[in-house]
Amino acid sequence: MQYQATVRIEQKAGMLDPEGTTIKRALGQLGYQVDSVKTARLYEIVLEAESAELAAQKVDEMCQKLIANPIIHNYTVELKELK
Amino acid sequence: MQYQATVRIEQKAGMLDPEGTTIKRALGQLGYQVDSVKTARLYEIVLEAESAELAAQKVDEMCQKLIANPIIHNYTVELKELK
Repeated sequence: MQYQATVRIEQKAGMLDPEGTTIKRALGQLGYQVDSVKTARLYEIVLEAESAELAAQKVDEMCQKLIANPIIHNYTVELKELK
Repeated sequence: MQYQATVRIEQKAGMLDPEGTTIKRALGQLGYQVDSVKTARLYEIVLEAESAELAAQKVDEMCQKLIANPIIHNYTVELKELK
C-alpha cells in the first residue's frame, strides 16, 4: 500500500519563533495589525508500507531521527492511504 | 471577532524543492526508502476583523504583498473563528 504522511513540525511552547515575529512586524509596517504569527513546517512524505500502523511507525522514526528535533519541536503526523 | 488564518505556502508544480530532495536522500541513507518528500510552510495568523469575509480578504492581501511570492508559490488559506 502507498501512504501519504503529512508531518507538521512546530516550535515547542516557549521557544522563540523569529520568523513569525519578523512577519508580524513587517505586516504592521504594511498597515496590517495582527495579534500573532506562528510558523510551522510541513513535510508530505509518500511511502510504501504493508499497513497503516507500519507506515505510521516508520514516519515516527523518521521524525525522531531526522526531521524533527524533539528537544525544541513538537510534531504531529496525519496519514492518508493513497492506493 | 477574532480569526485564525492558516496559510499554507508551497512551491508551484515544476519548481525545485531542494529541502525535500535532501531529506529524501538523507532518509534513504538512514535505511528509509520513501517515494517522495515535499515541503511546505504554514503560517498561523491571528487577527481581528469584522467578518470572516473581511478577514479572508485581509489575509489574501498579506499573502500577495508579503508572505507568498505568487510567481513561484501556491498558497491556500483556511479560516477559523476564535471568538
